[in-house]
Amino acid sequence: MKIKSEFDIQFHIPKQTPIVAVLHVHPSVESRLLSADTLTVEHIVAVEERLEPIPLQVSQYIDSFGNRCSRFVAPEGAVRLSGSNVMEASETPDPQGEGLAQIPIEDLPDEALQFLLASRYCQVDEFGAIAAELFGSTKPGWERAAIIRDWVHDKVAFNYKAARSTKTAMDVFTERVGVCRDFQHLAITLTRALNIPARYVTGYLGDIRVPYAGPGDFSAWYQVWLAGQWWNMDARHHTPRLGRIPMAFGRDAADVAITTSFGLAELTHFHVESNEVDCDGRPVPLPTSTDPSAASPITLQ
Amino acid sequence: MKIKSEFDIQFHIPKQTPIVAVLHVHPSVESRLLSADTLTVEHIVAVEERLEPIPLQVSQYIDSFGNRCSRFVAPEGAVRLSGSNVMEASETPDPQGEGLAQIPIEDLPDEALQFLLASRYCQVDEFGAIAAELFGSTKPGWERAAIIRDWVHDKVAFNYKAARSTKTAMDVFTERVGVCRDFQHLAITLTRALNIPARYVTGYLGDIRVPYAGPGDFSAWYQVWLAGQWWNMDARHHTPRLGRIPMAFGRDAADVAITTSFGLAELTHFHVESNEVDCDGRPVPLPTSTDPSAASPITLQ
Amino acid sequence: MKIKSEFDIQFHIPKQTPIVAVLHVHPSVESRLLSADTLTVEHIVAVEERLEPIPLQVSQYIDSFGNRCSRFVAPEGAVRLSGSNVMEASETPDPQGEGLAQIPIEDLPDEALQFLLASRYCQVDEFGAIAAELFGSTKPGWERAAIIRDWVHDKVAFNYKAARSTKTAMDVFTERVGVCRDFQHLAITLTRALNIPARYVTGYLGDIRVPYAGPGDFSAWYQVWLAGQWWNMDARHHTPRLGRIPMAFGRDAADVAITTSFGLAELTHFHVESNEVDCDGRPVPLPTSTDPSAASPITLQ
Amino acid sequence: MKIKSEFDIQFHIPKQTPIVAVLHVHPSVESRLLSADTLTVEHIVAVEERLEPIPLQVSQYIDSFGNRCSRFVAPEGAVRLSGSNVMEASETPDPQGEGLAQIPIEDLPDEALQFLLASRYCQVDEFGAIAAELFGSTKPGWERAAIIRDWVHDKVAFNYKAARSTKTAMDVFTERVGVCRDFQHLAITLTRALNIPARYVTGYLGDIRVPYAGPGDFSAWYQVWLAGQWWNMDARHHTPRLGRIPMAFGRDAADVAITTSFGLAELTHFHVESNEVDCDGRPVPLPTSTDPSAASPITLQ
Repeated sequence: MKIKSEFDIQFHIPKQTPIVAVLHVHPSVESRLLSADTLTVEHIVAVEERLEPIPLQVSQYIDSFGNRCSRFVAPEGAVRLSGSNVMEASETPDPQGEGLAQIPIEDLPDEALQFLLASRYCQVDEFGAIAAELFGSTKPGWERAAIIRDWVHDKVAFNYKAARSTKTAMDVFTERVGVCRDFQHLAITLTRALNIPARYVTGYLGDIRVPYAGPGDFSAWYQVWLAGQWWNMDARHHTPRLGRIPMAFGRDAADVAITTSFGLAELTHFHVESNEVDCDGRPVPLPTSTDPSAASPITLQ
Repeated sequence: MKIKSEFDIQFHIPKQTPIVAVLHVHPSVESRLLSADTLTVEHIVAVEERLEPIPLQVSQYIDSFGNRCSRFVAPEGAVRLSGSNVMEASETPDPQGEGLAQIPIEDLPDEALQFLLASRYCQVDEFGAIAAELFGSTKPGWERAAIIRDWVHDKVAFNYKAARSTKTAMDVFTERVGVCRDFQHLAITLTRALNIPARYVTGYLGDIRVPYAGPGDFSAWYQVWLAGQWWNMDARHHTPRLGRIPMAFGRDAADVAITTSFGLAELTHFHVESNEVDCDGRPVPLPTSTDPSAASPITLQ
Repeated sequence: MKIKSEFDIQFHIPKQTPIVAVLHVHPSVESRLLSADTLTVEHIVAVEERLEPIPLQVSQYIDSFGNRCSRFVAPEGAVRLSGSNVMEASETPDPQGEGLAQIPIEDLPDEALQFLLASRYCQVDEFGAIAAELFGSTKPGWERAAIIRDWVHDKVAFNYKAARSTKTAMDVFTERVGVCRDFQHLAITLTRALNIPARYVTGYLGDIRVPYAGPGDFSAWYQVWLAGQWWNMDARHHTPRLGRIPMAFGRDAADVAITTSFGLAELTHFHVESNEVDCDGRPVPLPTSTDPSAASPITLQ
Repeated sequence: MKIKSEFDIQFHIPKQTPIVAVLHVHPSVESRLLSADTLTVEHIVAVEERLEPIPLQVSQYIDSFGNRCSRFVAPEGAVRLSGSNVMEASETPDPQGEGLAQIPIEDLPDEALQFLLASRYCQVDEFGAIAAELFGSTKPGWERAAIIRDWVHDKVAFNYKAARSTKTAMDVFTERVGVCRDFQHLAITLTRALNIPARYVTGYLGDIRVPYAGPGDFSAWYQVWLAGQWWNMDARHHTPRLGRIPMAFGRDAADVAITTSFGLAELTHFHVESNEVDCDGRPVPLPTSTDPSAASPITLQ
């Protein structure tokens, strides 16, 4: 299956500011690219009567998590970040690891250890007793991880209005409402507290072979380490999905913000979509939902 | 000047548990080693009437901050970690960067950017307005960083009893009491909030050419990025010191715990010291303090 | 001047639940009532083709702050709380106490002491050092209280979307955004921390002789104790106003919620207004704003 | 049974400061007094070669919870608060209300309603989901309250070093360690979250007919409202006890501090005891423990 993803994000910048963006697919999936994975950053300026895009210089680097980051200085005025890519994707929804045993800490690879630690939004150090009480009697390994994921899915309500940038896993645990990243932060924290490495993922998750669920957004999910590999988990969309395309991995959302602006940047336009396309690059029509209730669980982010 | 550092740390382990230790000097200063930088991990077992140390297998790895980490499985019973090293050290106290300009974010090296972000104990995202109000009118660069360091030093009281593992920079800001790491967390957070990269350091800081200040400990300080390099800062011991030997760098204490045990480990013995030694390896006598007040600011950690 | 206030609040109650409401004017201002201060609680039920209001039994009590509270059991279905009152009100905007000295704690009346203490949303115990640093060099008494009020007004942005029920003064101090009650909580906390008693008020604050500022709401402000009496302060609408009618006093919003429901109660309709009326009970026309910027500071809540 | 309680508390006052003390027994138990319930406040001054106590003027008032409070201005220097009383006490340990039904909120007396609300250290508003998950399937009423009490007793470890003045019920829930007041704060919060009124109590709880458990202290416990009365509960000493003498009731410790000083007051001496006495006023010998483990659960506070 081919998936085409594209985005168009625009800011009003009141005063020149540096910005770091994570808007490329993750290097670990670049081999599946069928097109260039473009990122264009432009300053939109009025030239006589017209608006002209002037390309801005962008430099790239790989951060300590292996993410491809882009840096540029946004000048005062209108700034536009846009890009697209086409990827080969699996026809199989998220693989499930039923029955997989938990890996003893001593057998974890070195690089997985950091995903057991506390981080900005995942206060693992405050959840030790809570996680043990809630999930200590479940079967270690995949079952435990899946039960945590489903518990968070069931206990937390989605509400865009309940988003705030400083919201932590503990806030989600007490308030029980949040957005995509909040679901994952709580699930990650509980999972780590029971010694299963868990890392945060941002990426594309479009409506692929599921009914249309409204305007797109970037999505967040997480991964757990079992049986020698990372497995996708998602406490918001907890049924197996097609078409997850990772852009960045980190300990939590603090590590992998789509854009980090070091000054004011007012969002003026936001468009993201990720669709299955046919050989000619045209979107494959989505199924229509016959069950009205089916639409809700698949709303993006 | 030669500095010899050594430690002997013992735990009672009620039940076999994996442990990660950061007990080597940082690879970036290994070129100054005059001896092996040893780490021995032993299980102390009673054999007939005597206690026998049985070496445990330890594996090493370098984490994403470049720290040399050691992993082992601690068996039930008594476990001892000991080691020592001798290093060549500068005769000059911490260099001071008076007058250095702040580096615009766009000119920071890629690898310094992560030290502007929020982390577990350093909620940069909650301190934006506070830092701007307190320090926004100071001169950017070295002066600003030094004023933050001195402010924290003056406003926070040292008290071993006020330590707790979950204490954040915000807790320190409101409670105004803490231990070494708490001073640094608050200073780091305020510094980052004003766009100067700051990273946490653990290491040795012995009584070197200063009066004896009581039993030793590992210490914590931090570094700020200015003029193309990292500069030592210390909100606890805020006067320039000799003999800082870094063991690990990180975003905050969550990244660089001396030991991280994934099960119970009861500390039963703790000895750390770091002394100037002469050509024969004998400790150089310390000056005696003629000013009784001089002793207090140099107490370790 | 006469002020007529009225409200009509409706809930959908999924399952019978007890409710406590604070919807009468405070007993201390009852002597200014020119009409009955009514509160009607009704169950709206469909009788044949029509909706019929069936009055519910309501009992009253005075709580420990002297507030007139109403209790009733809301049955499943639609429940409506409505009422109105007409009061004689002063023609003079909020009196100002310029130059008033702070009252030494030992001279405060017994009943004012509790308004120095920490409460649910006002963590006075966490703000001691912060308040002293920010305002310790201001002139004690009225000036200090007014400077705190204005500081909060200037530093916090109003945003309905930033409301949440668990938001504390510390959250407001770090997030710098909130609704009416959040402004007052931060100001109250800072004021108490400097030993000026401060209490939270809920009540009516209509557009009285100021340009229309949009649909009405209940409002929150606070009072400080100086020179033997309580003085109105308002960190949200910080210019003197006409027509404040107190409904309840408390330590913070936890004490004086307009309605406290002990089960689910979904708000379906909300209308509050408070207007100057003439001798015939007709609303007095409001001035129109000639200065467009004048409208913004007087928006309700 | 007769119980004699006495205390001698001394402070060094660096600079004149007002103090509020709650050091009398609660008015509701005054009818059981067999002696005067004295409180003497003295300034200890050196007169020639001797220390002389100079009585300070103390005024009393009853606060909104019905507690007898004492106010005075402590001058610079040494200040001593001492007092004693003898009370008639029941021969029966804390009555138990097994099987008592929970009171529907609509049937609670008006004055009990405030003990359902959130307060400084008891964030009921953050524990709704947590309390429901942990205890929602227990039998409402006495059983539920007792299960909460025992759960807190079992899950929280006592440690004097873990005390801090700003510690909340949520901190206790995550840290699982604390002192007497911390146990009660968590239990009170969980109890209120399930709609059983709970109030905080400070008072005497001596070693009465139990083995000596070390130097005395004031104690804290709580009460729940069932079957028309308040019942003693204690999450720290959770077995029925003799000799609880209440001094003050409140929503949490913020309301009923033994002493609230509005300036620095350094504790220099602290002695409290509460003993059964015979007809001649002599202490009744305590039983000696035959079971060494018996001593530990009855340590004061």
